[in-house]
Amino acid sequence: MDPDAVAKAFVEHYYSTFDANRAGLANLYQEGSMLTFEGQKIQGSQSIVAKLTSLPFQQCKHNITTVDCQPSGSGGMLVFVSGNLQLAGEQHALKFSQVFFLLAQPSTANLMCHS
Amino acid sequence: MDPDAVAKAFVEHYYSTFDANRAGLANLYQEGSMLTFEGQKIQGSQSIVAKLTSLPFQQCKHNITTVDCQPSGSGGMLVFVSGNLQLAGEQHALKFSQVFFLLAQPSTANLMCHS
Repeated sequence: MDPDAVAKAFVEHYYSTFDANRAGLANLYQEGSMLTFEGQKIQGSQSIVAKLTSLPFQQCKHNITTVDCQPSGSGGMLVFVSGNLQLAGEQHALKFSQVFFLLAQPSTANLMCHS
Repeated sequence: MDPDAVAKAFVEHYYSTFDANRAGLANLYQEGSMLTFEGQKIQGSQSIVAKLTSLPFQQCKHNITTVDCQPSGSGGMLVFVSGNLQLAGEQHALKFSQVFFLLAQPSTANLMCHS
């Protein structure tokens, strides 16, 4: 698979897991992983999933608009995603963008910003 | 300086150079650097600057809203920026977001998306 296809497959897997079973995201992070969420830095798989499962919305659906990727030079991959986040009961979708830094080992550094 | 301060200083330098003298951005890229601009991948300092200086607007002003950064694990740093781009003669600013992957050597991998 080419890097773009890998990035797209990862992103689809990440958001379908987020929307269907947020706790399942734990498998995609390791102890060294970091999530930055609206400026807050959170380290480690368990803390990251605790943050994501405690967000003030339950049912949601991510619709992906763009996926860009680049090799990172150290066997990793930088992936930039933008899209819309539809929350249950809300009329208007929120725009979001998120960056994944994927390593050859299944460890993810992860920057997120909702706007 | 702490990593957040380094990231903020870099981002301010990058956009003030972009707005005042776009060709001067050449110093921030190397031959191995890559820019992804709205899905198009462009490699090398000279090609990147050729792309940036050929954008269909001349005078512009970037206003930064958020700067998030994370260590990349290999001595580099991942920086995520969002903000508004005001073009001369346009009433409404464009939203933009951009990712920088800064390496210890002055080489920048770079993902950009205007929306």
